[in-house]
Amino acid sequence: MIPQGTSLIGQKAVTGGQAVIRTIDPATGVPIAPDYPGLDPEEVARACRLAWEAFDDYRESSLEARASFLETIAAEIEALGDALIERGMAETGLPQARLEGERGRTCGQLRLFASVVRAGEWLDVRIDPAQPERQPMPRVDLRQRHVALGPVGVFGASNFPLAFSVAGGDTASALAAGCPVVVKAHAAHPGTSELVGRAVQAAVAECELPEGVFSLLFGAGNEIGQALVADPHIQAVGFTGSRAGGLALMATAQARPQPIPVYAEMSSINPVFLLPEALKARGQDIASGFVASLNLGAGQFCTNPGLVIGVKGEALEAFVAAAGAVVQKSPAQTMLTPGIHAAYGDGVSQLAAVAREIARGVPAVGPHEGQSALFSARAADFLSSEALQAEVFGSSSLVIECEDLDEMRAVAEQLEGQLTITLQMDDADLEAARALLPTLERRAGRVLVNGWPTGVEVCHAMVHGGPFPATSDSRTTSVGSAAIRRFLRPVCYQNLPEGLLPEALRDDNPLNLSRLVDGKRE
Amino acid sequence: MIPQGTSLIGQKAVTGGQAVIRTIDPATGVPIAPDYPGLDPEEVARACRLAWEAFDDYRESSLEARASFLETIAAEIEALGDALIERGMAETGLPQARLEGERGRTCGQLRLFASVVRAGEWLDVRIDPAQPERQPMPRVDLRQRHVALGPVGVFGASNFPLAFSVAGGDTASALAAGCPVVVKAHAAHPGTSELVGRAVQAAVAECELPEGVFSLLFGAGNEIGQALVADPHIQAVGFTGSRAGGLALMATAQARPQPIPVYAEMSSINPVFLLPEALKARGQDIASGFVASLNLGAGQFCTNPGLVIGVKGEALEAFVAAAGAVVQKSPAQTMLTPGIHAAYGDGVSQLAAVAREIARGVPAVGPHEGQSALFSARAADFLSSEALQAEVFGSSSLVIECEDLDEMRAVAEQLEGQLTITLQMDDADLEAARALLPTLERRAGRVLVNGWPTGVEVCHAMVHGGPFPATSDSRTTSVGSAAIRRFLRPVCYQNLPEGLLPEALRDDNPLNLSRLVDGKRE
Repeated sequence: MIPQGTSLIGQKAVTGGQAVIRTIDPATGVPIAPDYPGLDPEEVARACRLAWEAFDDYRESSLEARASFLETIAAEIEALGDALIERGMAETGLPQARLEGERGRTCGQLRLFASVVRAGEWLDVRIDPAQPERQPMPRVDLRQRHVALGPVGVFGASNFPLAFSVAGGDTASALAAGCPVVVKAHAAHPGTSELVGRAVQAAVAECELPEGVFSLLFGAGNEIGQALVADPHIQAVGFTGSRAGGLALMATAQARPQPIPVYAEMSSINPVFLLPEALKARGQDIASGFVASLNLGAGQFCTNPGLVIGVKGEALEAFVAAAGAVVQKSPAQTMLTPGIHAAYGDGVSQLAAVAREIARGVPAVGPHEGQSALFSARAADFLSSEALQAEVFGSSSLVIECEDLDEMRAVAEQLEGQLTITLQMDDADLEAARALLPTLERRAGRVLVNGWPTGVEVCHAMVHGGPFPATSDSRTTSVGSAAIRRFLRPVCYQNLPEGLLPEALRDDNPLNLSRLVDGKRE
Repeated sequence: MIPQGTSLIGQKAVTGGQAVIRTIDPATGVPIAPDYPGLDPEEVARACRLAWEAFDDYRESSLEARASFLETIAAEIEALGDALIERGMAETGLPQARLEGERGRTCGQLRLFASVVRAGEWLDVRIDPAQPERQPMPRVDLRQRHVALGPVGVFGASNFPLAFSVAGGDTASALAAGCPVVVKAHAAHPGTSELVGRAVQAAVAECELPEGVFSLLFGAGNEIGQALVADPHIQAVGFTGSRAGGLALMATAQARPQPIPVYAEMSSINPVFLLPEALKARGQDIASGFVASLNLGAGQFCTNPGLVIGVKGEALEAFVAAAGAVVQKSPAQTMLTPGIHAAYGDGVSQLAAVAREIARGVPAVGPHEGQSALFSARAADFLSSEALQAEVFGSSSLVIECEDLDEMRAVAEQLEGQLTITLQMDDADLEAARALLPTLERRAGRVLVNGWPTGVEVCHAMVHGGPFPATSDSRTTSVGSAAIRRFLRPVCYQNLPEGLLPEALRDDNPLNLSRLVDGKRE
């Protein structure tokens, strides 16, 4: 299949008349055909209206039908074959193995949500049977299930052209919840987006679902995204991107006559705390593990370790020397877009102005290659400097030297909200770790020990979320099966006759669900 | 115990220096001593700081300790005895039986949350064990639990001086979640609030908890409430009140450097749909049930049935005549405050200007009595009139005549978000009910059949919530055990050594929790 340069509205391909997206191969700077004309505003509105019209039918589709749909999307994406991988490589500069892995993750994620839909835990059924004899007043029959919120607007991310894009985690979890999805494609990889969009479109047809269940919009600039969030038919938004972008969408969502939730995953520097005994015992190993995580994917991960905190002394000096030596040998890597590359350069320059340089990687050769960089600063300076605390998206990191464990805790306490915080620790560090843990829990969605934050497992226990400004809503996760909850709301049914009760709530439990009956798990 | 006119900050009683709250007995208009001087801003900040200082300890208190604390609050409230009921009657004009019932509900609610804390479902534990042999990459050990959000600001409501006030549902569910609470007392019943506040304060001391777990603030006007929501230590807000009040708090919460969730329960007209066969078969009974619900508590319930929708014809005319006859005989009742009484008068006048009057109740005698009122209008007019759709807080309702079932559905489709929607139906109405149900689910948090919306059971399956503008967050409930979720967020623990793992997540499951292991319920 060859990308056509069109938006997809329901089952139709639509060519807009607005400003054009023209992408390039970041490794060479050469433009890639076709151009993607921006969609006209009335077509954006039509996609949202179609989604609304599909909503009541789609949300009440059977669990089996919805699960099959998700599996069909996965199969259709796989059926795109090498064309998808090749297009992704050309548009993103990411290597083949990474994109093949990401495709596996994306399809695995869709299949995970299929199993989640079938298991039905997300319905969170609660039944409080009538108590006609209760004194002083009888209790009526009350039953609760969760229903889908409504059509969801999803924004593709630049850094995961498959797993956080057209059929990524936001789309998979919204579709699983019973919400039609309208995706705004990211301008950095339009062909990849269209190919995946056509796979979803084919799955909608194959599963005989209402066409409005899925649409894919292209548009240069912010207008289409703003129109999507402002559209009265859209009931929630999923976004992964910059803090400025997320804040703008939150403002638009709040300014609507009916405000709606925005799930924006925005920024994180993913601090790593080096506890003293671990640092002493295995500083070299930690240094090489750290730089490997830092350089992964040219540092273009939300969970890239942008901050390392240790107590000053010989062990930290040895760690810094070792990490610096690995950084120096790190080849520059092509970044995703000219914009991201330029922003990385600016960020590194700003850091260089306020921090001490430890090492730079091998200089760039290609047009959009990012050169690794490692800096250091004293904790006291970090605590008083916004520039030192800012996220630099790419393979740059900052080592913070603390006077002692108390100052380390002060640094932890002053951190902004994070997606992850990592502890490098040995058994002898247990007391120090215990003292830090309450702070880390308050500051991050995921706390890791002796691992690296890059690599976000798609499973049931994952939290890819965290306190503001890591995300707009710390009560949720955008990765893992709990992500479905973002698109649900509870409804209580009081005294409904059996003939009117939703299947999930019937006495005979035809869906075989785990249910809370009078507060007890059955 | 006699109210002293003080705020309570931790274990201390504090007298402010700001504008004074002076309440009256609404039945007589006579002022009630003592005055309540408004708290100074630095004392508001101190209460929030104390709450923050208490947070880490309190949120990690054992389930048993926290459950006992909630039970101790209930016992301390009961120990206030008749003094509380008498004070409540004087300040609100509500009858003794109502306040005794509400005290029972309040204490029952605290004990329900004690059982919820002990059962631990709210921790929502998920464990995905390590899979060291997995190909192509091993899986690390990942475990999720929920932790408390942080100190919560709670606003007492005017219409439930006990159950939605100082130790009401918001406070009980926030304390259950592990969040310290700072309450802003409602100015309509300050003495009642202080008495309950002292009961909570005593329970904090008795249970040897950090004093910052609870504070109670008094202040005239909106300044203290705004300061509470803006305080950086406050992490979530619970509010029951007017739409204007809720929207103002939402705006403040969103404008903070770190936005926080506001759970505002704001407005609802609780439509009742009279399906044709039920109306024909038992219109008289429905009419008397309706007016009884309308008049309950002088109509001062969030779930008061302010809208009744039927298809025109003889049966609806008979219903209207019967309901009108009961309204005519309904005595006027003292309302909660002069402000609420005046707003009710205004609302009824505005309705009278655009709707047809069916009946008025017995005229008022006392200074703040509300006279029942019933109006009617055609569906076509309702659909085009904001005035007809506005909530009138009090015992006034509006009957809407539809041309047919299609128009009834159009009315349902155009409703704003509601707390409740009720169907009066017989077996022969099943098809009509099925056609309406998808719309009703989208428009309300609770759907009732053959009951009345007043009377909100405190249990596990209840949803007292609904789409905006009924509440600010349709994903939640403010009544029932699921209310605890509003104050929680998930945290994932990756590869933590057993010595660092929270108890809820340990392999040996010492808390005996229901857990999701690899996605399967255990």
